[in-house]
Amino acid sequence: MEGKEEDVRLGANKFRERQPIGTAAQVPDKDYEEPPPAPLFEPSELSSWSFYRAGIAEFIATFLFLYVSVLTVMGVVKSPTKCGTVGIQGIAWAFGGMIFALVYCTAGISGGHINPAVTFGLFLARKLSLTRALYYMVMQCLGAICGAGVVRGFEGGSQYKLNGGGANTIAHGYTKGDGLGAEIVGTFVLVYTVFSATDAKRSARDSHVPILAPLPIGFAVFLVHLATIPITGTGINPARSLGAAIIYNKDHAWDDHWVFWVGPFIGAALAALYHQVVIRAIPFKNK
Amino acid sequence: MEGKEEDVRLGANKFRERQPIGTAAQVPDKDYEEPPPAPLFEPSELSSWSFYRAGIAEFIATFLFLYVSVLTVMGVVKSPTKCGTVGIQGIAWAFGGMIFALVYCTAGISGGHINPAVTFGLFLARKLSLTRALYYMVMQCLGAICGAGVVRGFEGGSQYKLNGGGANTIAHGYTKGDGLGAEIVGTFVLVYTVFSATDAKRSARDSHVPILAPLPIGFAVFLVHLATIPITGTGINPARSLGAAIIYNKDHAWDDHWVFWVGPFIGAALAALYHQVVIRAIPFKNK
Amino acid sequence: MEGKEEDVRLGANKFRERQPIGTAAQVPDKDYEEPPPAPLFEPSELSSWSFYRAGIAEFIATFLFLYVSVLTVMGVVKSPTKCGTVGIQGIAWAFGGMIFALVYCTAGISGGHINPAVTFGLFLARKLSLTRALYYMVMQCLGAICGAGVVRGFEGGSQYKLNGGGANTIAHGYTKGDGLGAEIVGTFVLVYTVFSATDAKRSARDSHVPILAPLPIGFAVFLVHLATIPITGTGINPARSLGAAIIYNKDHAWDDHWVFWVGPFIGAALAALYHQVVIRAIPFKNK
Amino acid sequence: MEGKEEDVRLGANKFRERQPIGTAAQVPDKDYEEPPPAPLFEPSELSSWSFYRAGIAEFIATFLFLYVSVLTVMGVVKSPTKCGTVGIQGIAWAFGGMIFALVYCTAGISGGHINPAVTFGLFLARKLSLTRALYYMVMQCLGAICGAGVVRGFEGGSQYKLNGGGANTIAHGYTKGDGLGAEIVGTFVLVYTVFSATDAKRSARDSHVPILAPLPIGFAVFLVHLATIPITGTGINPARSLGAAIIYNKDHAWDDHWVFWVGPFIGAALAALYHQVVIRAIPFKNK
Repeated sequence: MEGKEEDVRLGANKFRERQPIGTAAQVPDKDYEEPPPAPLFEPSELSSWSFYRAGIAEFIATFLFLYVSVLTVMGVVKSPTKCGTVGIQGIAWAFGGMIFALVYCTAGISGGHINPAVTFGLFLARKLSLTRALYYMVMQCLGAICGAGVVRGFEGGSQYKLNGGGANTIAHGYTKGDGLGAEIVGTFVLVYTVFSATDAKRSARDSHVPILAPLPIGFAVFLVHLATIPITGTGINPARSLGAAIIYNKDHAWDDHWVFWVGPFIGAALAALYHQVVIRAIPFKNK
Repeated sequence: MEGKEEDVRLGANKFRERQPIGTAAQVPDKDYEEPPPAPLFEPSELSSWSFYRAGIAEFIATFLFLYVSVLTVMGVVKSPTKCGTVGIQGIAWAFGGMIFALVYCTAGISGGHINPAVTFGLFLARKLSLTRALYYMVMQCLGAICGAGVVRGFEGGSQYKLNGGGANTIAHGYTKGDGLGAEIVGTFVLVYTVFSATDAKRSARDSHVPILAPLPIGFAVFLVHLATIPITGTGINPARSLGAAIIYNKDHAWDDHWVFWVGPFIGAALAALYHQVVIRAIPFKNK
Repeated sequence: MEGKEEDVRLGANKFRERQPIGTAAQVPDKDYEEPPPAPLFEPSELSSWSFYRAGIAEFIATFLFLYVSVLTVMGVVKSPTKCGTVGIQGIAWAFGGMIFALVYCTAGISGGHINPAVTFGLFLARKLSLTRALYYMVMQCLGAICGAGVVRGFEGGSQYKLNGGGANTIAHGYTKGDGLGAEIVGTFVLVYTVFSATDAKRSARDSHVPILAPLPIGFAVFLVHLATIPITGTGINPARSLGAAIIYNKDHAWDDHWVFWVGPFIGAALAALYHQVVIRAIPFKNK
Repeated sequence: MEGKEEDVRLGANKFRERQPIGTAAQVPDKDYEEPPPAPLFEPSELSSWSFYRAGIAEFIATFLFLYVSVLTVMGVVKSPTKCGTVGIQGIAWAFGGMIFALVYCTAGISGGHINPAVTFGLFLARKLSLTRALYYMVMQCLGAICGAGVVRGFEGGSQYKLNGGGANTIAHGYTKGDGLGAEIVGTFVLVYTVFSATDAKRSARDSHVPILAPLPIGFAVFLVHLATIPITGTGINPARSLGAAIIYNKDHAWDDHWVFWVGPFIGAALAALYHQVVIRAIPFKNK
């Protein structure tokens, strides 16, 4: 494996000039430092205010995410003609745009996950402790429930249920396998973008890259919605699916609900694997 | 409280590497300096040209904001079929996009508020004097009235009134409470983004962050419009609501008008509170 | 006037921290240097290759601008139902997006004007010589004619004429005065954004600002189209109007044609005046 | 030729201040260094891991590109009314947005071509070896086939064929010459943007420019789709056309298929010629 590691380093130096579009050329390894993997449990973070503040920021961000996106869905769904609304494309913008704005706002506080699948993927790459990962996921789900709840309060319970409540279900004409596949690939696109945008190697080269990261991350969410709204309504975020399902609370949403946890978690794991093993070759380097 | 402050600082240092997406990692306090709170009255600014220039810039920006956005609304509303227009989504782009372009243009002159609710939120955080805040609000309202007036001039008075004049009212099927809530949360999204984008802490780390600030701020306006156009037409800007209401000048617009002042001001106050107390913990630090 | 100049400088220093959103805080005058005004005639530039290359770049850029935007217009106009097309909003994106991409591509070669009104505004601010301004305008008009011509070649002459050829005319229900006003304010928005984005003062502070300039400039074009497509089809670019009119070549397009030269030139002059006199106070400083 | 070269350099220095909008001012030649042309065959790169990793990254990126874009096309095409879908404009966003996100993600690994025409253009400019160019093209085509194949798996074979499978064909009312012309100019827009964004001269001036490059590149793809979806469905990417054609596999797609290879390659060659000879004047400098 020694040899393989050498190759990576050599290649990076030697073939730098062959990467013409690149947002960044490759640099020798010494220019950046892979942060050490986060421990599974880190008792000391439990006594710091920044830990609790991060959870509050995740709660508020997921609350606002569900509020704006589900309210947009309601406005489109309840209109008899889609032409008098922002349309399905407007729904895709609401989901993707909110992720752009909220990642921009909360990245400096909590990392700006706003999505248990993103938290899971980053946990697999050992970017945060297990304690923190679980805490984030709980706060995200609570925020999502409250966000969908406020929309239901505005729309009224019967209107809300009539119009599907923004809950994720698998559309007629698609199997559960199709839905699961769509969630897996969709989450792969999102988490792969997150990893690319937050690469330690990239940060070392250009300290201002992370500032631009929220835009491609938001776009990834927008694009997956363009493609898979007709299949599952697009989850790729278990907190979003759970919040809408709890407030909607009808059988047909609960029947498919596992798809919106299993799919995103598999997609996030594959993205973590692809980025850490294929792109960064971390297992080979750490030998 | 001493201990709490210590926590914040410790946490910021110790858990830095656990913030993987971040637009910015946390830095120790000494790297930046919180500017001192602006005095309530600052007589000296009244004798500087930059003070008057800032007011003119706010006037022109709010004028152009209302002109483009209300003209877009008119084009959509008066068409018998929405498909032959830019659509409701186009209206949301007009509002959000103008805020992006105008904040970009005027931020260096006046701070680029273009919205009394933003001015109010920044005043609560003591970023500008009371004199300046009131002066900005007056100029914003005057600009908005002129902008809507020019649109009425183009469209003709009867056409303009027939099509609602871009004035904000609460739609059928929603209570005043719903409308007020929508304005509060919508303005919270906007002002929270403004605070995040202009954080002194963030500026210290990355001197070029403010350059990107107009984009998420404009997107926040776009997204809130996607969600709440079906409820209130979306105000989140009392000058915009006032300008359209004065030029439209019909009873049903005036009946709901207080919602478009009270809602945005509450939302801005909550965003200021959230950012200054929860995120920045400023009250605890200043002790 | 000495005193006034002092005020500007004092204000800039003293009230810096009162500009919270700003894409940039104000800096003392010594940090940047206003480039000297360009001479009216500069014989030496006529013998440099970069002068001719700049003209070629303006030609190609305006060619591509008209090609993509008029082809998009054709695709929308000839469809019986707008829902099966990119829609009017798609037309606005085509115009604004092309300006974003083309300014990004050609700014380093020719300044990226792609519009005689922009060239005129920058000439009034003495940013380029009269020779260069006239040369750019000629190349822009030639490029526009060729771009519209290729679209006509693809669509066929009769189809092209039937569908209006993307030419600018004043719509039913609006007077010539309305159309002229719409062109003036629309061009003001565009040229004001151009001036803000290319301010020497701003460049001094943040050397990377110009890189972001194409985005708000493109957005300004997009936004003006959202608002004024129903009135004039939106010119704000005399080369675009001329190119489409020559290839379309029908009386009713020629009747209003003067509006699309006089309007943009007045708008550009007002923007130059506003930026140089009110915002930058250059006449007072040069005294 | 010596004199011409001198002109370029002189002009660049002397007329710098006449480029007001510029994303960048011109700098003297000594500030940057044109990388030497890549050799046609470079045996050593075949033994480096970074070479194979780059191919995998191109495969995955093109796979995701086809998956999201063709799935979006399917969702729009199979709906009886376009108003209840993301619309044709949504299709344009899917293509352009994916290129933005994927170039952002893969530029640091492989250069982020995701398109044989881009690889061809950069090869003509001698930015990569022939070996690498051919290897990239093969991986792109394989990725595209797999991406379209997954969409067919989700939609079911009969549905997929009924709805055209996202394959590129020349629409009724247009000749093959029109289609070829549209592909040539469309690819010219894309590859010209790629060259502008990755100019070595620009990189020398502003080390962070490449970070912004994916946005105009993605926009170029979006804009060309707005214009030419009604003519050819828009290829400008032979891998995308091949992948959809193989999975769709009907005669009428194969009949026009050569247009989607010849057109993009001619367009890319013209863009390389324009950028290297007219804009950069490289042949004259290297004498």
